[in-house]
Amino acid sequence: MQRILSTDLAAHPYEKVLVEGWVHRVRRLKSVAFLILRDAAGLAQVVLTDPARAEALTEESVVAVTATVTPNPQAPGGVELTGPEIRVHAAVDVPLPFELHRPALTAGLPAQLDHAALALRHPARRTALRIAAAATAGFRSALEAQRFVEIQTPKIVESATESGANVFRLDYFGRPAYLAQSPQFYKQMMVGVFERVYEVGPVFRAENSDTARHLTQYTSLDAEMGFITDHRDVMAALTRTLAGMVGEIVARTGHETPEVPAEIPAVHFAEALTIAGAPADEPDLAPAHERALGEWARREHGSEFVFVTGYPMRKRPFYTHPDPADPTWSNGFDLLFRGLEIVTGGQRLHRYADYEAALAKTGEPLAAYRGYLDAFRYGMPPHGGWAIGLERLVARLTGAANVREVTAFPRDPHRVTP
Amino acid sequence: MQRILSTDLAAHPYEKVLVEGWVHRVRRLKSVAFLILRDAAGLAQVVLTDPARAEALTEESVVAVTATVTPNPQAPGGVELTGPEIRVHAAVDVPLPFELHRPALTAGLPAQLDHAALALRHPARRTALRIAAAATAGFRSALEAQRFVEIQTPKIVESATESGANVFRLDYFGRPAYLAQSPQFYKQMMVGVFERVYEVGPVFRAENSDTARHLTQYTSLDAEMGFITDHRDVMAALTRTLAGMVGEIVARTGHETPEVPAEIPAVHFAEALTIAGAPADEPDLAPAHERALGEWARREHGSEFVFVTGYPMRKRPFYTHPDPADPTWSNGFDLLFRGLEIVTGGQRLHRYADYEAALAKTGEPLAAYRGYLDAFRYGMPPHGGWAIGLERLVARLTGAANVREVTAFPRDPHRVTP
Repeated sequence: MQRILSTDLAAHPYEKVLVEGWVHRVRRLKSVAFLILRDAAGLAQVVLTDPARAEALTEESVVAVTATVTPNPQAPGGVELTGPEIRVHAAVDVPLPFELHRPALTAGLPAQLDHAALALRHPARRTALRIAAAATAGFRSALEAQRFVEIQTPKIVESATESGANVFRLDYFGRPAYLAQSPQFYKQMMVGVFERVYEVGPVFRAENSDTARHLTQYTSLDAEMGFITDHRDVMAALTRTLAGMVGEIVARTGHETPEVPAEIPAVHFAEALTIAGAPADEPDLAPAHERALGEWARREHGSEFVFVTGYPMRKRPFYTHPDPADPTWSNGFDLLFRGLEIVTGGQRLHRYADYEAALAKTGEPLAAYRGYLDAFRYGMPPHGGWAIGLERLVARLTGAANVREVTAFPRDPHRVTP
Repeated sequence: MQRILSTDLAAHPYEKVLVEGWVHRVRRLKSVAFLILRDAAGLAQVVLTDPARAEALTEESVVAVTATVTPNPQAPGGVELTGPEIRVHAAVDVPLPFELHRPALTAGLPAQLDHAALALRHPARRTALRIAAAATAGFRSALEAQRFVEIQTPKIVESATESGANVFRLDYFGRPAYLAQSPQFYKQMMVGVFERVYEVGPVFRAENSDTARHLTQYTSLDAEMGFITDHRDVMAALTRTLAGMVGEIVARTGHETPEVPAEIPAVHFAEALTIAGAPADEPDLAPAHERALGEWARREHGSEFVFVTGYPMRKRPFYTHPDPADPTWSNGFDLLFRGLEIVTGGQRLHRYADYEAALAKTGEPLAAYRGYLDAFRYGMPPHGGWAIGLERLVARLTGAANVREVTAFPRDPHRVTP
């Protein structure tokens, strides 16, 4: 018999069907017991007229149930399964470290992460990962519609570039090599090939920061585009992309998501400091400043999103394009969502001589950037791009206090398992 | 003026337009010169009535051309651009290491790889990467249509599992950790969450094999599905997925691709040895055997694809499900495409006790697999899956002799740049 999903049961009244899934819960009454079966789609109620039979059905055991679909307005979904024959695929014979059938997991986060294979089955954890998958799918389809081509780039690199801090070092056949902190250089090089490219992939940060918003591996949604006028073209493409992501989340999960304005409000960094009540000589925005800006954007513009543009050049990476009108400011931007930075982007340098000059300032040897500089030596258009931190976005969307709650198997300075 | 692409020119006869791109080639005749401009979509011919103006237009310089679209049946695409004003975004003032405008790159592979930022602009290299992107998109959409959910899993792991060979070791805040050889354990654990999952991501093999078909980082197209009867359900889902991939490649690139049969021919390992003329006690298929099987499948079944099933248990990983009829054979399979293994898959063990027994045989400590085993301790359905090596598939599709030709920035034991 062909298995059907729990959500399809109502379409088969009075038929004998096969459902398969996990024993989500067993409720024992005096003369009857209810087995609540969980599958990928939802829950199904199975009626056991002999409550003694429920004894063997421990929670999370995997079962196949052949039974008759019986309408019952009191049952969830309007039907229940009666007269079941139950076959056990895998029996659980140890106590669970925590229960999955409560509305929220009562176990603390460390216990959830230690037992991720179990905790992720909880509907709340599962929903966060479905939102992440929808956001990623929306990112791709919005970019494909804008002529971006997907690329895959190396995660093992020779040089600890960009100051060399916060990179993981590995043994590459007896030589040192490093895990890529971002696909930045590669996506820029690929602008020379496809003009517009994107990548969804892991990035690695050896940052010893045990906070609610840092991970040592996270998923970066990167894009880069050529033949722009300046960073505002990048911001426009990003805005369209965010709208596609939000649309896909709503379409797939029904999760309540904020509207992406057709034009997201943007403030220059200097103005942002004033709004946040920060001293005018601050070189960057602290988390408290970002929160203040998030509140300002909601209050003044009714927007959950706000761009901050023109960050000081001295706080942006060497490849950042300066503001032609005043080169102490950059054509770089961040996007804040509900007061948290979730995207960094901007226009990049595109002329070889500008790279030579910018790298000379850093004091780093040009040789470390040889393959990257090749792209500029052999002709590159004005270009720019961005990187979205997937886990931060999903945490902000779901209201999760910690990015670890929306990551299947998070990595931080103290956790490298499971 | 809004930029248009080279392929849209014919729709704008006699209009003044802006095109932007790279100087692909300059052809100088006595009284006229032709600038061939390359953009992401194709080529455009620009007529320069003063050939002296062409001197400054070095190959690969990036230019913006404002000109009039003039029909000319002799020109490629039926139109050319006349009366151009040319603005240079970035001038190339060094000789190129090789030319891009020949039908094939004449530089050897090492030179191409050393100058990847340039070589990848060649139409042949570009096409291979477009095929890879199309294959990946087709993989995802075929799986989404079959209820698979996309996941992202850790690339940094605590244990050098599965014998510990061929893994890259890294320094994780003073402790050893390793780069994941595959998402195998994670995708299995996620079957407990979503039943059907997939991942597109990098995997890492510290294999000191400098061959035409090995990379130390490659893109693995992984899928895993629960509630199967045995490996044949997995092979059926894989066949549907391959058909979707091939369909997307044809739709996006027009590349001539082989048909995926509704049922791909399958031979048992023991029979495969006979067909390949190998001794009956061979434990695995050598490359020559795979080629012989590829030829057999084409000859006997008219298929470029062939499944080999039932590989001996002793050559498959510990989590492989044995053939219930004869446990010296496994429910594992490989898929050969044109005589090369491009997919490995099979049914996995799903009961905790079976994992305990299988790991006891390997002699490895159970503790190294704690988080993974949690999934089985707390209930897992019968399941299986596969992993497709993207670069091998694309190399086979394009006829590339070396996987490095179809990888943007390949990594091998001797190459970790650019």
